[in-house]
Amino acid sequence: MKRYGIIMAGGSGTRFWPLSRKRLPKQFLNLTGRDRLVNETMDRLIPVIRKEDMFVVTNAAYAELTLATAAGRLQPDHILAEPAARNTAACIGYAATEILQKYGDGVMGIFASDHYIRDEAGFRGVLERAVREAERTDALVTIGIKPRFPATGYGYIRRKDKDSSAVEEFVEKPDLETAQAYLESGAYLWNSGMFVWKASVIMEQFRRLLPDIYDCLQEIGQAMGTAQEKETIMRVYPQIPKISVDYGIMERAENVIVLEGDFGWNDVGSLDALETLYAPDGNGNILHGEALALDTKNCIGYAGGKLVALAGVENLIVVETEDVVLVCDRSRAQDVKKIVDMLETEGKEHYL
Amino acid sequence: MKRYGIIMAGGSGTRFWPLSRKRLPKQFLNLTGRDRLVNETMDRLIPVIRKEDMFVVTNAAYAELTLATAAGRLQPDHILAEPAARNTAACIGYAATEILQKYGDGVMGIFASDHYIRDEAGFRGVLERAVREAERTDALVTIGIKPRFPATGYGYIRRKDKDSSAVEEFVEKPDLETAQAYLESGAYLWNSGMFVWKASVIMEQFRRLLPDIYDCLQEIGQAMGTAQEKETIMRVYPQIPKISVDYGIMERAENVIVLEGDFGWNDVGSLDALETLYAPDGNGNILHGEALALDTKNCIGYAGGKLVALAGVENLIVVETEDVVLVCDRSRAQDVKKIVDMLETEGKEHYL
Repeated sequence: MKRYGIIMAGGSGTRFWPLSRKRLPKQFLNLTGRDRLVNETMDRLIPVIRKEDMFVVTNAAYAELTLATAAGRLQPDHILAEPAARNTAACIGYAATEILQKYGDGVMGIFASDHYIRDEAGFRGVLERAVREAERTDALVTIGIKPRFPATGYGYIRRKDKDSSAVEEFVEKPDLETAQAYLESGAYLWNSGMFVWKASVIMEQFRRLLPDIYDCLQEIGQAMGTAQEKETIMRVYPQIPKISVDYGIMERAENVIVLEGDFGWNDVGSLDALETLYAPDGNGNILHGEALALDTKNCIGYAGGKLVALAGVENLIVVETEDVVLVCDRSRAQDVKKIVDMLETEGKEHYL
Repeated sequence: MKRYGIIMAGGSGTRFWPLSRKRLPKQFLNLTGRDRLVNETMDRLIPVIRKEDMFVVTNAAYAELTLATAAGRLQPDHILAEPAARNTAACIGYAATEILQKYGDGVMGIFASDHYIRDEAGFRGVLERAVREAERTDALVTIGIKPRFPATGYGYIRRKDKDSSAVEEFVEKPDLETAQAYLESGAYLWNSGMFVWKASVIMEQFRRLLPDIYDCLQEIGQAMGTAQEKETIMRVYPQIPKISVDYGIMERAENVIVLEGDFGWNDVGSLDALETLYAPDGNGNILHGEALALDTKNCIGYAGGKLVALAGVENLIVVETEDVVLVCDRSRAQDVKKIVDMLETEGKEHYL
């Protein structure tokens, strides 16, 4: 059976500011020193999914940047440009429609373009199992991550019990106490947002559970391959209801299973994730670029071009980019969002 | 009697790094937003000392920079270029020799080029008194600063008692406990390094107390106005023993008096002095340039060109310049020197 890789790269999130910017969202950053996240996302799927069968769904504004970034990995017609951001259900529905109309049914794996995976071989092992499961059973397969600590920044998937692949429910980001209980129970996995299923199977779920979206997708699908394709997408796509695939389908469908993965996954959701990507020195400092530290502990010093010198400080994140210097306490990495809001309020959008 | 202003501008100190640099020492910085420190130093002497009677002694390496900075304030032949840095006794002896040989005896006031004075009128009042005292009495007059807090970064002058102008001794930078005792006694003043005396009077002190230096000055003086002047200075000046005027003369001379000043003086000796130059906001933050703070207290954020964003931090000094970002704890401003040493050791002198 055919296998397709769908990379969702429409994010314009600002939680990774100032490394990520509106004109260069996180998926286009090279944080590992090897390659840009979107490219790493594609490359680590091979050979479970063939290079020729990758698709990237992204905002039309990033279509050219995506093509340039992918540098030969992607055919231009494998970039699916969204005229507006309509959340993940729309994005996945668009990709499924494209596949069914133009390439033929097959198993599609859906991946965020801006996550990090340390053990890529381990990841491919789980992915191969997920693809085979989707081929064999018509299930909606999701890959859950074995929790390493009581994370409050991730949603969780509750299984029937330890070692089961039967999903009981999807749960919201918990508070610390709840997260601790989840960790201890052993039945919970982090929701990584990776899904594997047949295009025809997910389309049937759209029909059953999200009929409004299904109707839009039908209209788009009928125009595909005709002279009206582009115009139809431009007109219909922005009307698709905004809902995530988690809320719209995963929490309501019956045939959902989860495979457990433990391969060093991180959603790189805020700047403190840099600690996952780089090894700290003996003082707990992560120094990137031209950075130096004196009597300094547990700091992240990320120098983009200048010298970044830290003296007598602890638990800071310092990030220097082309036009911004951010200094924040390590426990406040989430507050970067508030800085971004301040800048927006003050009309300083050129810094976003 | 003639009055001369001697500005000592040879410093290449790095305690103000990264704002000060080897190629642009602190005296050439505009920290107040009004003018560069060396210019402010000259301007605030007027009219006690006439603009035409100002001299700047500086390292030959900074002679052109000084002339360009002074922008019409100085005649080129009023810049006395030292071929080598030989401490303050040499510097003052050179100026006194120049005055005696070329301009005629008079009262000379000596001032550091890189200090800050908030109440300039108050300063001129004390200076006028000092000049008259030097004219009338042949005393070595120094201006001491009424201590505002138990500073450990300044030397002190002990008077016979409160309100006396008779100097008992010059004392070194004290520890905090000693500084506290000095503050409480009322007899101690901060040593600001400002001196006022007749050129002929200080020259006589050189002859009595520092005969080696006196001999060098004599040799230089005899060449002044001849074709050999420049060559003689180049040859003799670097041989002058290195000693400060405080150690060499002030601590040993008999006719020393001190006038008390209380005009908001600060030697701008390290980055935390920025708190003297700028008014903090309601959270104790001093934000200069394009800087913003969120949930941040008692921080100095100095943005040179980029946006500097602070989030959830306290008691930090953050300075951003053309090629450096410094982040240090406010209590560790003195450690900037150690950073500079590290950079020197690592061969990164382009950052100095």
